Amino acid sequence: MNGLLTDLYQLTMAAGYFEAGKSKEVATFELSVRRLPRNRNFVLACGLPQVVEYLLGLSFSDEEVEYVRGLPQFARVSPRFFEMLRDLRFTGDLFAVPEGTPVFAGEPILTLRAPVIEAQIPETYLLAAVAFQSLIATKAARMTHAAGGRPVIEFGTRRAHTAEAGVLGARAAFIGGCAGTSNTLAGFRFSVPVMGTSGHSWVMAFASETEAFRQLQRLLGENAVQLVDTYDTLDGTRKAAALGEPLWGIRLDSGDIATLSRDARAMLDGAGMRSAKIMVSGDLDEHKIHALVAQGSPVDAFGVGTELSTSGDAPSLGAIYKLVELDVGGIRRYTAKLGTDKGTLPGSKQIFRLPDHDVLARGGECCSGAGEALLQPVILGGHLIEPLPAVHRARKRAAEGLAKLPAGLRSLETVAPWAVRHSAELTQLIETARRNLQ
Amino acid sequence: MNGLLTDLYQLTMAAGYFEAGKSKEVATFELSVRRLPRNRNFVLACGLPQVVEYLLGLSFSDEEVEYVRGLPQFARVSPRFFEMLRDLRFTGDLFAVPEGTPVFAGEPILTLRAPVIEAQIPETYLLAAVAFQSLIATKAARMTHAAGGRPVIEFGTRRAHTAEAGVLGARAAFIGGCAGTSNTLAGFRFSVPVMGTSGHSWVMAFASETEAFRQLQRLLGENAVQLVDTYDTLDGTRKAAALGEPLWGIRLDSGDIATLSRDARAMLDGAGMRSAKIMVSGDLDEHKIHALVAQGSPVDAFGVGTELSTSGDAPSLGAIYKLVELDVGGIRRYTAKLGTDKGTLPGSKQIFRLPDHDVLARGGECCSGAGEALLQPVILGGHLIEPLPAVHRARKRAAEGLAKLPAGLRSLETVAPWAVRHSAELTQLIETARRNLQ
Repeated sequence: MNGLLTDLYQLTMAAGYFEAGKSKEVATFELSVRRLPRNRNFVLACGLPQVVEYLLGLSFSDEEVEYVRGLPQFARVSPRFFEMLRDLRFTGDLFAVPEGTPVFAGEPILTLRAPVIEAQIPETYLLAAVAFQSLIATKAARMTHAAGGRPVIEFGTRRAHTAEAGVLGARAAFIGGCAGTSNTLAGFRFSVPVMGTSGHSWVMAFASETEAFRQLQRLLGENAVQLVDTYDTLDGTRKAAALGEPLWGIRLDSGDIATLSRDARAMLDGAGMRSAKIMVSGDLDEHKIHALVAQGSPVDAFGVGTELSTSGDAPSLGAIYKLVELDVGGIRRYTAKLGTDKGTLPGSKQIFRLPDHDVLARGGECCSGAGEALLQPVILGGHLIEPLPAVHRARKRAAEGLAKLPAGLRSLETVAPWAVRHSAELTQLIETARRNLQ
Repeated sequence: MNGLLTDLYQLTMAAGYFEAGKSKEVATFELSVRRLPRNRNFVLACGLPQVVEYLLGLSFSDEEVEYVRGLPQFARVSPRFFEMLRDLRFTGDLFAVPEGTPVFAGEPILTLRAPVIEAQIPETYLLAAVAFQSLIATKAARMTHAAGGRPVIEFGTRRAHTAEAGVLGARAAFIGGCAGTSNTLAGFRFSVPVMGTSGHSWVMAFASETEAFRQLQRLLGENAVQLVDTYDTLDGTRKAAALGEPLWGIRLDSGDIATLSRDARAMLDGAGMRSAKIMVSGDLDEHKIHALVAQGSPVDAFGVGTELSTSGDAPSLGAIYKLVELDVGGIRRYTAKLGTDKGTLPGSKQIFRLPDHDVLARGGECCSGAGEALLQPVILGGHLIEPLPAVHRARKRAAEGLAKLPAGLRSLETVAPWAVRHSAELTQLIETARRNLQ
């Protein structure tokens, strides 16, 4: 029932493979990041459960098959193709880098091996699922790094590209290091911790700001976060302070945060509320967070939306899904796209992570003692081999994986890339394949 | 069952309104664009059917209510709130600018009037739905303008922020002026014309490029678009030309498009294939499209992905949803947020479009002969008053609305903004409200 969630050309190619008698040929595709996005030294792999859910559910309803059959592009296609489509299920293998793993340019995040039609159709969905969540997890990692241990909370569903992107973005942001999200469905579906404050409408809905603050305190007690900038930030802070405890603290959402946070802190301290905290929000990115931290602003938590939930400075990831091998009746052909700017490497691969570089090797290569092999089997013969780790496991893996990288790669600056070397066997295969293709 | 698709604070505020005895107060919220995105002279309003579907379906399952009840933020909330939540439906009114209408900074796209809890919870979803589709429709309008009548086809699902964003982005891109999409589900669900070519994997899957081209021609006949850049663009073009008709044409996806399109055109013409067309793709934006058109490149169609489907140069829209009125037992309070950078205007409004400016007036104002009133009733008392127009009607409205704007506003350059004046009554209300709030 998700079969139409793809580009039309995947379905015309599927029909073409069928008509050309290639249905039984087994294709291996790799999904990789061609180059790192602007301002990034790494990408955190994310989105695997959505890939698995898609593949295990891959199918077409009768109505969907009839829609395809009625398109002009399918006028010449034989009826047997549509019968095949109606019964289509994913019967192949999926290998993947575990969620939360930092990856680099040219490295495969997923390897899919299946009869060519089953491997071709998922391209569109897989690229969208992995690229989006990986972008958000990566952005979250940068923001939490900038915050230097202070919690960063994801508030960006309203800016996400559809509410569904808000849910999956919240998931990815948590894996990347955020402390939680405002997205309630992400809490329900993925056990991401949910957090929140109150909005300007709350303050406006009461006859006075003080009344709004008092009601919030009654409701939330020590969880109450007073939003103080509806009318005048410092006047609002004064009113919140006048009400005393219990209170988590206040939120500043506009104006000059560096100055206002200092003044608000002094005001809270003056009222004897040293334990009341200050959260700030409003068009924050990792650089603004870093600047506030660097100048010692008394900020206890950051609420981030737009820049995180759209990966604002780099809203797309140059991920590609390319055919690397084709098994035609037991004979293996290695395939590659040539060209200087958009070339690809033949043959299925494995990534070995060593302390100061990665080795990209051939899939079957034995590299005992050569570091951690990152691509692991996930689906074999159409069956999930074991449940995937929960989000908190992926989040832990991300934190540990990032901690092992040189400090420069974790910084906000763009530095010399992590080395990804080719094994001798892979180098040989590349040379052979290029000679054969030219 | 979509009730959790919101920020947690909407639900805590809902509980707070309930506990404070405000459930019966009727709130009016306006969703508007605070300021136009970078590089934009207008925004095309888009996403209304998704808003309607959300509001008409607004509800919580038992399991969802239990999830909320279990959160620490709800520890003090009385059991009656959760009973209310279980029965919650949207019973209010929605007014909206029809899809495809160009709108400007400060203008409301939606007005929602409902008991305050029903009006508060939808904020997050409505902002995400309207902002995202409006961004994509606007970007598509810029690209189709740049293409000067040549078709622009949306190919970007793989770069969209989730596959669902790909479907809704395809819908929005069509409304904005694209000729069609590669997204098959957008064709099935919204009757957007679906189009496609073939991918590099198709070429690689055959033993030779010529064999791949021949098979595609057999399959698609006059719809076949040969992708010629897998190994060498001009060599690929030569092989496609050698096969002759039937053929739609070729696609160039990499390299120096200006030069390659000219050489490929000469090659096709030399083979007597003057009717074979050239489509180009590969990281195109409106400026690259404009440059190709301006220099007379022989390009017949543009395939665009990343930049369109993420609105790459402006991936977020500063849309806001603000309380403007509150009816408390028959007494109306006008509400506004103060502040220079993020202030809002009190009272529900109407937009009147005149030939050379808009007038923002109070909702009830009678302005006969004062231009088209843009905000129209869509849902009254929780019921849809008539089916919404189909996508092709919204697309037509967009084309007509843009054609009526001064040429400068439609251009790719940022020009002096369209004038949005306040009516005398609105001006008076703003002054009164600000005085009362300060």
